[in-house]
Amino acid sequence: MSKRMIRIFDTTLRDGEQSPGASMNLSEKMEVAQALVELGVDVIEAGFPIASPGDFEAVREIATNVTGSVIAGLARCNDEDIDRAWEALKGAEAARIHVFLATSAIHREFKLKMDKDEIIQRAVNGVKRAAGYCSDIEFSPEDASRTELDFLCAVIEAAIDAGATTVNIPDTVGYATPAHMAKVIRTLCDRVPNIDKAVVSMHCHDDLGLAVANSLAGVEAGAGQIECTINGIGERAGNCSLEEVVMALRTRGDYYQADTRIKSQRLVPTSRLVSNITGLVVPRNKAVVGRNAFAHEAGIHQDGMLKEPTTYEIMRPVDVGFAKTDLVLGKHSGRAALGDRAKALGYSLTAEQLREVFDAFKVLADKKKEVYDDDIAALIDQQTRDDVAESWTMVSYEVAAASGKTPSVTLRMKHGQREVTETVASGDGPVDAMFLAIEKITGVPTVCKDFRVQAVTVGKDAQAEVNVELEYHGRVQRGRGVSTDSLEASALAFLNAINRITVYRDAPAQGVQATL
Amino acid sequence: MSKRMIRIFDTTLRDGEQSPGASMNLSEKMEVAQALVELGVDVIEAGFPIASPGDFEAVREIATNVTGSVIAGLARCNDEDIDRAWEALKGAEAARIHVFLATSAIHREFKLKMDKDEIIQRAVNGVKRAAGYCSDIEFSPEDASRTELDFLCAVIEAAIDAGATTVNIPDTVGYATPAHMAKVIRTLCDRVPNIDKAVVSMHCHDDLGLAVANSLAGVEAGAGQIECTINGIGERAGNCSLEEVVMALRTRGDYYQADTRIKSQRLVPTSRLVSNITGLVVPRNKAVVGRNAFAHEAGIHQDGMLKEPTTYEIMRPVDVGFAKTDLVLGKHSGRAALGDRAKALGYSLTAEQLREVFDAFKVLADKKKEVYDDDIAALIDQQTRDDVAESWTMVSYEVAAASGKTPSVTLRMKHGQREVTETVASGDGPVDAMFLAIEKITGVPTVCKDFRVQAVTVGKDAQAEVNVELEYHGRVQRGRGVSTDSLEASALAFLNAINRITVYRDAPAQGVQATL
Repeated sequence: MSKRMIRIFDTTLRDGEQSPGASMNLSEKMEVAQALVELGVDVIEAGFPIASPGDFEAVREIATNVTGSVIAGLARCNDEDIDRAWEALKGAEAARIHVFLATSAIHREFKLKMDKDEIIQRAVNGVKRAAGYCSDIEFSPEDASRTELDFLCAVIEAAIDAGATTVNIPDTVGYATPAHMAKVIRTLCDRVPNIDKAVVSMHCHDDLGLAVANSLAGVEAGAGQIECTINGIGERAGNCSLEEVVMALRTRGDYYQADTRIKSQRLVPTSRLVSNITGLVVPRNKAVVGRNAFAHEAGIHQDGMLKEPTTYEIMRPVDVGFAKTDLVLGKHSGRAALGDRAKALGYSLTAEQLREVFDAFKVLADKKKEVYDDDIAALIDQQTRDDVAESWTMVSYEVAAASGKTPSVTLRMKHGQREVTETVASGDGPVDAMFLAIEKITGVPTVCKDFRVQAVTVGKDAQAEVNVELEYHGRVQRGRGVSTDSLEASALAFLNAINRITVYRDAPAQGVQATL
Repeated sequence: MSKRMIRIFDTTLRDGEQSPGASMNLSEKMEVAQALVELGVDVIEAGFPIASPGDFEAVREIATNVTGSVIAGLARCNDEDIDRAWEALKGAEAARIHVFLATSAIHREFKLKMDKDEIIQRAVNGVKRAAGYCSDIEFSPEDASRTELDFLCAVIEAAIDAGATTVNIPDTVGYATPAHMAKVIRTLCDRVPNIDKAVVSMHCHDDLGLAVANSLAGVEAGAGQIECTINGIGERAGNCSLEEVVMALRTRGDYYQADTRIKSQRLVPTSRLVSNITGLVVPRNKAVVGRNAFAHEAGIHQDGMLKEPTTYEIMRPVDVGFAKTDLVLGKHSGRAALGDRAKALGYSLTAEQLREVFDAFKVLADKKKEVYDDDIAALIDQQTRDDVAESWTMVSYEVAAASGKTPSVTLRMKHGQREVTETVASGDGPVDAMFLAIEKITGVPTVCKDFRVQAVTVGKDAQAEVNVELEYHGRVQRGRGVSTDSLEASALAFLNAINRITVYRDAPAQGVQATL
């Protein structure tokens, strides 16, 4: 029997981006979208165009420039939302309008104040309007898993009749069990007469740790699409993890008799990219993509592994994109060697980018005897991602600090061509003093919401990667800096965030967001 | 219908501690064990006594001093392991010997080189020897989920006949699906004639993201015990998360008709404790205990939340132990106020401990206008946890650094009463130079395997918490330091690790470890 192909609908850029702290700017979204195409996802939900001008622009840019996957945009069931979604999507090679409307009793009563007939009418109107623009229409009854089954069947039938080609069943609050999800999907497949005209889709949240299992239960019961995110990011406890659900289907293809088009070797690079961009750390023990996922600590395991790998290994690290070797480069390595490693790590650099990364690599290799894969990845991320117009750049710093005394920092920065020097003697330590000096020079007062440093690789000369979140007038911007000097990396991260703040401070505030 | 009570068997101290990087020392294990009793777990697996003298000592100390939960020790099916386990457990108020033996074809052939009859005989002998010591005996057929069902039934029947009172079904490699686990448990319940004389237990790994779902599927099919860990730590992708499986059963008690004795308000404090001790970060989007688990970002959600919380909330934050308010203390707060917050945060301090923590609090409150819950938790962790004999302590430091120049650190330290001062001009930045100065003074050469800084709370005067992992002769020790000055916190973390290395460097190397 040939395996059913399950469509992967990635919503990292829409539901994932709604994670507190995970918002992305335009070029970051473009980069993620391109990585998702290379990963082989069938549909990319690029955003919710009505939500804000930034969301609209991101969906439009992705729709216009990214090919190879269907590009979807979200809309509530009203004309304005749908028109705006199509406006953003119309340049796409393949576009999908995704309309949603809550259907459960609690939402009908408390949020929408509409009765069942009104809900069906609104859903039908929305799907019809969308179908006037394009043929690929997805309809989602929000809070479907808590909707009365009879009514859910009626809504789904009406939506398909109106032109929906995919019907998505969100477990919006992450309340469902696998048996419950299976029952819902089976009921729809059995009782909705026109169900064969649409693909049934799963959209599960992980509040009880069951998002992957609920999605798979739906597939077993007949669903043909799974909505998921890289690293399982998303509101609250997040969405179904793409990497977990994909590898469960592939590893247990014998049982599920289903597979996806995902190129599994791209899972780890894509996971790293999204983690770097959002600042959301992948825990060591994350299935499939975590640092420990293939680490076999126990002595007995290692013994068994030597005798026969399958005693303890159900997947091979190389199949999910962990590099086979941690080949070390050094100051004598050439540009070709660096290019090869970059390619093996999943980056496709232009000649110009490779030249820039190579220049930075030579500087690093002078400071650092052994340059590891993770160092190279950090370099490339640093060199190729910084789209923010750097109104402020650092020239140099000097710091003097001693325990129990007030630290002093002298900082030289450039604003365009203008150089500014400021000495600050304040703060609890050198990082704090550096931060205060940056604030004094730039005149941008912020609240530090998060500050994290991590070593990129091992050893005393490891590079430090610093992530910060600064709040300015109620909006949070992330910043990232990498250097072998963690104090310099901290300064770069603060400056990166400040530059983002100055770029975006005049942009309108984030508008409404969506829920599924 | 009254709900079935499912036993919670926590293996954070055994399977969890086998996570690469998560090893704990004796006093840390004691602290976790005490927290597990307060959480209400039925059984605490304290370790694998034969594995190493450290494991033996930890199980013995916990067995002798911790009451309120059954204390279990692990043993392979041989006399030496079992005798050693009992030696460690015999002082316990309630002890359980847990014996295991692999049963799957691949393990029989490649690891054990034994046929089926030999396996059964070995299992029976092991259970009988253990039953000679105590009446509470658990038997685990390793890799049970990949064992032929007929043979698994035969082994389980023989083990129960020999005296096993709990029979545990490990999905050792994390390969099972919920439907498969349900089938295995149902088959055992249907076909093993003496199954009513034992409790059937689940032990699931998360390699495909299904550990929680597989455990719940087993409970639906008749299992009466779940083996799990705090934060789901454990080998590779880890074990079933205690907090997720417990809250799934409680939140969906209507469906599972089962519950546990867990005091759910202790989940977040226990999660924090284990994360602090092991250095394994809890991701923001971790179900139940993650920082975002109850954060509703989306505008529509917030609107719904205001109208009716249950539109988007299936659990209340307060029910899993998120403090209701983030009450702020300051320099004028008294010892009673601090004691109240500590209690609310889940700490039970002795009068002596409260005095010490209060002294440290006054120092902090002088530097920091607002002292948050997380600051207080960090203070208490710092003051009450440091058991390591501090052979080396820091007196003071001075640092001078500038971009592009070699940083210089003058460090004064004490070794016992002897004061040593050293100036080092080397390294890539101040942290690096500090590290080199510590190495020079202590004479302990290490490789830095991990270095992480995170802000404990928000704002410029936030405390920094630094975690490091230093490798010394192939063994890794963690260190932790907290200060409002992140450079000082880094030095404290390095010193903490060095002190652990000097304490443990003469201890015998870690021995064999277990797999289930």
